[in-house]
Amino acid sequence: MTTPNFLQPRECNYQQLSPLTFLERSAWIHRNKAAVVHGDQCFTYPELFERSRRLASALAGLGIGYGDTVSAMLPNVPPLLEAHFGIPALGAVLNALNIRLDASTIAHILDHGGAKVLITDTEFAPIIKEALALAKSNPLVIDYADPTAPEGERLGTLDYEESLASGNPEHPWNPPANEWDSISLNYTSGTTGNPKGVLFHHRGAHLAGLCNPLTFGMTPETVYLWTLPMFHCNGWCYTWGVTAVGGTHVCLRKFDPARVFALLQEQRVTHMCGAPIILNALANAPEAEGLRFEQRIRIATGGAAPPSTVIAAMEPMNFEVLHFYGLTESYGPATVCEWQAEWNELDLQGRAAKTARQGVICPSLREAQVLDQDSGQPVPADGATIGEIVLRGSTIMKGYHANTTATADAFAGGWYHTGDLAVMHPDGYLEVKDRSKDIIISGGENISSLEVEEALYKHPAVLEVAVVARPDEKWGETPCACVTLKPGQSETEAGIVAFCRDHLAHYKCPRTVIFTELPKTSTGKIQKHILREQAQAL
Amino acid sequence: MTTPNFLQPRECNYQQLSPLTFLERSAWIHRNKAAVVHGDQCFTYPELFERSRRLASALAGLGIGYGDTVSAMLPNVPPLLEAHFGIPALGAVLNALNIRLDASTIAHILDHGGAKVLITDTEFAPIIKEALALAKSNPLVIDYADPTAPEGERLGTLDYEESLASGNPEHPWNPPANEWDSISLNYTSGTTGNPKGVLFHHRGAHLAGLCNPLTFGMTPETVYLWTLPMFHCNGWCYTWGVTAVGGTHVCLRKFDPARVFALLQEQRVTHMCGAPIILNALANAPEAEGLRFEQRIRIATGGAAPPSTVIAAMEPMNFEVLHFYGLTESYGPATVCEWQAEWNELDLQGRAAKTARQGVICPSLREAQVLDQDSGQPVPADGATIGEIVLRGSTIMKGYHANTTATADAFAGGWYHTGDLAVMHPDGYLEVKDRSKDIIISGGENISSLEVEEALYKHPAVLEVAVVARPDEKWGETPCACVTLKPGQSETEAGIVAFCRDHLAHYKCPRTVIFTELPKTSTGKIQKHILREQAQAL
Repeated sequence: MTTPNFLQPRECNYQQLSPLTFLERSAWIHRNKAAVVHGDQCFTYPELFERSRRLASALAGLGIGYGDTVSAMLPNVPPLLEAHFGIPALGAVLNALNIRLDASTIAHILDHGGAKVLITDTEFAPIIKEALALAKSNPLVIDYADPTAPEGERLGTLDYEESLASGNPEHPWNPPANEWDSISLNYTSGTTGNPKGVLFHHRGAHLAGLCNPLTFGMTPETVYLWTLPMFHCNGWCYTWGVTAVGGTHVCLRKFDPARVFALLQEQRVTHMCGAPIILNALANAPEAEGLRFEQRIRIATGGAAPPSTVIAAMEPMNFEVLHFYGLTESYGPATVCEWQAEWNELDLQGRAAKTARQGVICPSLREAQVLDQDSGQPVPADGATIGEIVLRGSTIMKGYHANTTATADAFAGGWYHTGDLAVMHPDGYLEVKDRSKDIIISGGENISSLEVEEALYKHPAVLEVAVVARPDEKWGETPCACVTLKPGQSETEAGIVAFCRDHLAHYKCPRTVIFTELPKTSTGKIQKHILREQAQAL
Repeated sequence: MTTPNFLQPRECNYQQLSPLTFLERSAWIHRNKAAVVHGDQCFTYPELFERSRRLASALAGLGIGYGDTVSAMLPNVPPLLEAHFGIPALGAVLNALNIRLDASTIAHILDHGGAKVLITDTEFAPIIKEALALAKSNPLVIDYADPTAPEGERLGTLDYEESLASGNPEHPWNPPANEWDSISLNYTSGTTGNPKGVLFHHRGAHLAGLCNPLTFGMTPETVYLWTLPMFHCNGWCYTWGVTAVGGTHVCLRKFDPARVFALLQEQRVTHMCGAPIILNALANAPEAEGLRFEQRIRIATGGAAPPSTVIAAMEPMNFEVLHFYGLTESYGPATVCEWQAEWNELDLQGRAAKTARQGVICPSLREAQVLDQDSGQPVPADGATIGEIVLRGSTIMKGYHANTTATADAFAGGWYHTGDLAVMHPDGYLEVKDRSKDIIISGGENISSLEVEEALYKHPAVLEVAVVARPDEKWGETPCACVTLKPGQSETEAGIVAFCRDHLAHYKCPRTVIFTELPKTSTGKIQKHILREQAQAL
């Protein structure tokens, strides 16, 4: 049955889905409300909208348009939030850089992503200067001098606030011609040294922007503290989600427990997110002693299960800990450990054991399964049989930018393959047990063990190396390098680490070095699981 | 810039939007949770899913498939909820009939909508029997005998529960091939006597199913009482929305304040909706005296502003009254009177005056405007200049089934034209002042004044007639017939009303009759606004 012409989609009943409309709507409704708080700065929703339109206008004046990439090297400050709206308003693509990366990786990303403009905080001038010297591309640089931060070198001739001042506050504001158009490009450490560029589309960003607040219980009264970097999967899409409900964004340039506690109180924060290390730091901060907030604060974590000790420390402060699981490829949250009423009866250990599970799909996804890696069939829901987590739904990336092979691999067989190994419990909740890809998650950051290995192979004394995750109470995991030296050579743990610090972003460097013969299979493959057990036993 | 092939949408990252996935997801997650409560019956989410799949399977066995219409004459009972999932699962279209309609209108709808199957509650056997005798079409009848209701005549050879028992509990469950496919067909009284068939699509139902719970503050803990008929715009899409969050549906076959109060308490209801008459009845029920519920109950109303007396009566019972505005054409809620924090400072009258406004767009819409009817431009936001409310966004109907002209009229100039006249306040909130179409809203039901006029023109003593809305404390509005009798003829008010009751659904009959000369313009057009003033002054 074909649809007659008069019932085909039209402008008035078929609008392209895009988070751009969230800001437009909140600016219409919440005229006097704080949209963004940053130090002494406070922008209402109409002001945030105006600033985003000025940004779009200023970038258009620089020649930025449909499909162009604009990179941003910014901590959690208002310009990065504005970039999430002003850049896509041109049909351009936001590439938010991880501010912890080293210069050569940044150079690679600028080149690979084709950045035409780079907005950079003056704090990062030294590393960006180095990156720009390494990069083949030559993006136009806009410097942002944060009034709350010390002054730093300016690398370009354009100033962020001046550019905004020159922009048109009524710049046109329209969703893209096609909701499948790219909205952002987020580089993620994969199994190979070079990061892959995950492309998000407007449709997915819109749906994540609606579903994430729904899952996290957000309302117009929500006050959201930016303890999670906005450059991590666009802040798990809460850049768009908090704006969708008309909540308040509270910026945080740098994580510091004392500052966080002060903001939670002053701003009456209701929601925040963070890697386990963030929860850990809050739970163990001296200021936490005897502290209790008047308001209930929901804190979402992901990357690793929140330990019962952390939950036990945070509950008395009036935190409610929620456990999410996701990847950059799934726009952040893909599953949530949705609470079941009967769990209220359990003691702390029992509740922590439930919360430790990665859970069930968020409503923007259609399905999560744990597939047997040989048969490709779902494993039995026995809580014991291990398989790979695969996902499908409306909030899965378009693919990897300019990387046909990696995209094809990721999407093999009609699923997105996470590379994470898990079991399916009888109640339908999945629980991650291991990662099949060589990723170490340390302090919420992905580290490719292969990238660290490649760096170490350049060390003149190293014969063979395998890098594995070592469990760590503070960081979740840290890289542990298992090294075999060349015959007759010698090197110390400190020497290995120092070598890495010269070649890698510091957070990627091994914290532990084991000098050992590497265990291998009969076909010569390094048996990383044995090394992982050794690292764990240290 | 064209999208390279490897970045085109695929099954794993582009799922057709449909509320079907909500039920699938909630059945996976909420395995032991009450999805539907109806008298002594209680179905968990897996049971609701299974029953919906059995329904799909049973209908498939009767030859129902893609694009077919299945009508339902059901009060708020589990089968109508199941119909919202089981019918669209086949690509078929749910046509939920207004159970208050008269036989000839039902016959018209069955014919116009092309019903192939009719699921009917045995309570309505008398009127359906009459309708089937009048209809040209001959739908297959499935009788539903509600265990909580008195027995009634069975009109078909198939029983609802027996059909379900014969169905496959694992019937395939997939979103439609195209999210623009029709999901439901809702007939609405327009300005002409014959109702128009509003077509909803899966995409809009999905987005309304996400946005409505977000706007109404729903969570998995939500317990929703069905005081609103599910046949009204698919229950303002809460059939899908409550299922999306995994809340509990509490069925209510017939509205009765004492029963409602009992259910609110027993089931710990958190959310409900209703026309102003529902709020009125609850506020004025003798049982309301001194009553206060432990839990906060959010009650959404629409169709007319909740009066301050009703708000004053409901707040002490622990109700929070929310005011929505919408039409069948906008999937129910299109705007919401979103609360502003500063209104908390106002006294009751001040708060009621704010709440009386129809408000601002729900997040599923892109824009609402008040357009000057001559120039087509937005009226000034001065709270005084009247224009027509127009809407556009993702939750506007596909169009009117088999009605090209009405669809073209409704969508003229790139907007959906509501026909409602309103002002735009300086704060961006719109407020309905009048309706340009001849619609009377009585007890939450639309009544076409033209339909009542047409009926009265058949009366042998009537020369001329105009039917207008008369404000009514209980019903919101009631039809008032202004009649000029033929010279030498006589008739009483009771006679006019009795005549109408023979020709119309009873709720459409005039409650007041004015015998008068009809005021006319120089060109002979009846000046309804003068009659409206007269009716108001009675």
